[in-house]
Amino acid sequence: MKRMILGACLVLSTAIATTPTGAQTSSVATLDPALVEQAAKLRAKGLSDQQGYKLIEGLTTEIGPRLAGSDREAAARQWALKTLKDLGFETARIEPFTMDGWARGVETARIVGEAVQPLHITALGGSVATPEDGITAQVVRFTDLYELEAAPKGSLDGKIAFVDLKLYRSQDGSGYGNTNYIRGNSPSVAAQKGAVGVLIRSVGTDSHRFPHTGGTRYKDGIAKIPAAALSNPDADQLARLLERGTAQVHMTLTPKALGPVQSGNVIAEIKGTEQPEKIIVIGGHLDSWDLGTGAVDDGAGVGITTAALKLIKDSGFAPKRTIRLVLWGAEEVGLLGARAYAEAHKDELADHVIAAESDFGAGRVWDFRTRVGEEDLPFTNAIHRQLRPLGIGRGANDAGGGPDVIPLRMAGVPVAALYQDGTDYFDLHHTANDTFDKIDLADIQQNIAAYAVFAWLAANLDVEFRPQADAPEQAGTQN
Amino acid sequence: MKRMILGACLVLSTAIATTPTGAQTSSVATLDPALVEQAAKLRAKGLSDQQGYKLIEGLTTEIGPRLAGSDREAAARQWALKTLKDLGFETARIEPFTMDGWARGVETARIVGEAVQPLHITALGGSVATPEDGITAQVVRFTDLYELEAAPKGSLDGKIAFVDLKLYRSQDGSGYGNTNYIRGNSPSVAAQKGAVGVLIRSVGTDSHRFPHTGGTRYKDGIAKIPAAALSNPDADQLARLLERGTAQVHMTLTPKALGPVQSGNVIAEIKGTEQPEKIIVIGGHLDSWDLGTGAVDDGAGVGITTAALKLIKDSGFAPKRTIRLVLWGAEEVGLLGARAYAEAHKDELADHVIAAESDFGAGRVWDFRTRVGEEDLPFTNAIHRQLRPLGIGRGANDAGGGPDVIPLRMAGVPVAALYQDGTDYFDLHHTANDTFDKIDLADIQQNIAAYAVFAWLAANLDVEFRPQADAPEQAGTQN
Ligand SMILES: [Zn+2]
Ligand SMILES: [Zn+2]
Ligand SMILES: [Zn+2]
Ligand SMILES: [Zn+2]
Repeated sequence: MKRMILGACLVLSTAIATTPTGAQTSSVATLDPALVEQAAKLRAKGLSDQQGYKLIEGLTTEIGPRLAGSDREAAARQWALKTLKDLGFETARIEPFTMDGWARGVETARIVGEAVQPLHITALGGSVATPEDGITAQVVRFTDLYELEAAPKGSLDGKIAFVDLKLYRSQDGSGYGNTNYIRGNSPSVAAQKGAVGVLIRSVGTDSHRFPHTGGTRYKDGIAKIPAAALSNPDADQLARLLERGTAQVHMTLTPKALGPVQSGNVIAEIKGTEQPEKIIVIGGHLDSWDLGTGAVDDGAGVGITTAALKLIKDSGFAPKRTIRLVLWGAEEVGLLGARAYAEAHKDELADHVIAAESDFGAGRVWDFRTRVGEEDLPFTNAIHRQLRPLGIGRGANDAGGGPDVIPLRMAGVPVAALYQDGTDYFDLHHTANDTFDKIDLADIQQNIAAYAVFAWLAANLDVEFRPQADAPEQAGTQN
Repeated sequence: MKRMILGACLVLSTAIATTPTGAQTSSVATLDPALVEQAAKLRAKGLSDQQGYKLIEGLTTEIGPRLAGSDREAAARQWALKTLKDLGFETARIEPFTMDGWARGVETARIVGEAVQPLHITALGGSVATPEDGITAQVVRFTDLYELEAAPKGSLDGKIAFVDLKLYRSQDGSGYGNTNYIRGNSPSVAAQKGAVGVLIRSVGTDSHRFPHTGGTRYKDGIAKIPAAALSNPDADQLARLLERGTAQVHMTLTPKALGPVQSGNVIAEIKGTEQPEKIIVIGGHLDSWDLGTGAVDDGAGVGITTAALKLIKDSGFAPKRTIRLVLWGAEEVGLLGARAYAEAHKDELADHVIAAESDFGAGRVWDFRTRVGEEDLPFTNAIHRQLRPLGIGRGANDAGGGPDVIPLRMAGVPVAALYQDGTDYFDLHHTANDTFDKIDLADIQQNIAAYAVFAWLAANLDVEFRPQADAPEQAGTQN
């Protein structure tokens, strides 16, 4: 079960790559010429693919918003199942699981007093409700969660805490971790100080009037208080008023906890011809937040990885190992589908060779990162060689792999990440503005080409990618 | 009262400008060197002005949305009056008038059936309501108003007409006329064909999920049917569904006609030292639509022209003729403040020398256009020479002058237009997204410099600008 010895590889020999000037660089395994040729064909087909774009169009147009556990997520599963069967994946199936549902209600806010005007807010996922006629309270602004943590106990009695840290723009979304953390943790911290509600600046890089939703959570034993995000312009407005003096806000949120509801993962695969029990996983998540139609998050990932699987199927090439597509359910509310998948497949996780999720929007892939055993880097470098013509760089061996592969990674499964350009991702992420018109055909095609090449090569190398000893777990997820 | 004879000009002599190659171009009057020096000082001060930006910040932060005839428009008048008095314009005053009020209500829509999902809509200004529980109807799409006009009578019985023409992007907003026309005229045309409601694609160039409001109207003797705009992504969605077959929409609009309410114009001025009865008018409109905070439409115009007046006042220069600032009320709902101003001042309209409104957003001025008598073009060309260092070109002599100067222009008053770069204007126009963060300080400063130079020179030339015979009226307004 541990990694195979390099010398035993059937189609590979290792070689030391040299730069034009002759300096030694990272090792790159030499691929069988047939694999190289197949990769080139998949690249070319991917770059003219029409299927992936059409899938995203279909999911967003015919289903639209598909909140975890809702009827619309169920409709999305049926849509996916039918679509996969129509594409020729006869064994496509749904793996259901149960979860606790939540539904958005009314969400309104306004500044009270002389500067009365509406504020655009949205409840954070999982938030409790205010009383039906809302709460009116003074607002106290904190420029970061650390400031809120430092506030004396009781200092926010009867008040609303406003945590106002803006997400900075980056290609790899590196600012998301911090602000995501604030979204998740502010309610319980604020409640400990006596606050009756929380407003956060949206975790978003845009200056549109769309508030960004996203999950929050409550710590056990601490009062649960309603929590919402302000759009960036509304956070600016509140900050400007607070610079002039005090500000009061009236806020009404009426979300509901629904108790147990159904969700599920949708799975399809191309069975391996030589080692069908060995599995390469690619996929995206089928659920979306309810405000937009989930085009970039994560209709794109669904379309890209489904189209990549179909491309390989239609190429007539038969992979040695199984390539499995997983369309996870209920990602947005805590990786519930990912956990259910890991639990349901726990007996075959040791045979999961490598996993990669597409869940960072619809931009071009610009960087290929992995998290594999050091000894197998020459093979991932060889895969990268076949991605390089798509304009993809070779990043570090510290990949997260996408949120839904976290439970797999925790169980020791190697992962890869085809990093998409996320410069604009957080302009749209978790807003009503995440709609199909934001999808660019050429960018989707480049993604499909990259996933097809990656999955094809990973399925045909006789490499297990597992490190000799598991590397320490690192944080980092962009759901 | 008719234009003065060139030879009688006190500070001007005419000259023929030549290009470097010696070819003759338009005539440019030579300005008194003192005026040129004063213009240079105003330009420099304008480019470092802090007042205008602060005024826009104040109006949007402290008042926010200020729908014509509402309490908030009244608050904006009080804000403007106090602000002008604080700036030293002791004779600042409100000129009230009465109008018919309208208030927005609930506005929701969704696709009915298998592809059920919400649509983002907003009632057009002046729209009647649906029944309180809405209407459900099949949607029929028309790619232009002409198509709708060509539909047989009765062909839309019980249906919703969807007029789907997209506004194209342009620097001078030249596409707005057509689409604005569709917004205003679709309801009565659709009603004549039997429709029970109208949806139009937003008059907007963005691909955001914000629907754009704006006034519509009903023809006498034709049934009034509810009318709303879809955001561009929602119009795309509906069009995609209609390509697949039929689509039903459930739509609820509950706006209300309010009967007679108060509005008003706010006026301030610097009295002329030699011919105080002669008036140069600059200004913007104080009202805004209710969805955003009216930063670019028309907080910018208010801030720019108020700051320009203040700049001239603080310069210590005394104009020969009066420079009057008019902050019109109720522009958005039919130029009501502009009509009220023209009526209230009808006895002095013959002494209105030239008028210019800033109402095309917050972008830089790139073109100077006029509508003056041919004989006075050398003088407007001389003014342009002093605008040219601000990066402003000299456009044609066919200016509209801004919506609120239309009634003045109709009464024979010459107009000028400092055309702002409107490339992005219709991304924000009449949406919730029209907020202060969209304002750029440097762009506002350039506008202030341009208005100060224009108003100063116009007030100190002994030219009346009136054509010998009135030119035929042309269309063209961007409110
Ligand atoms: Zn996601
Ligand atoms: Zn997400
Ligand atoms: Zn307007
Ligand atoms: Zn306007």
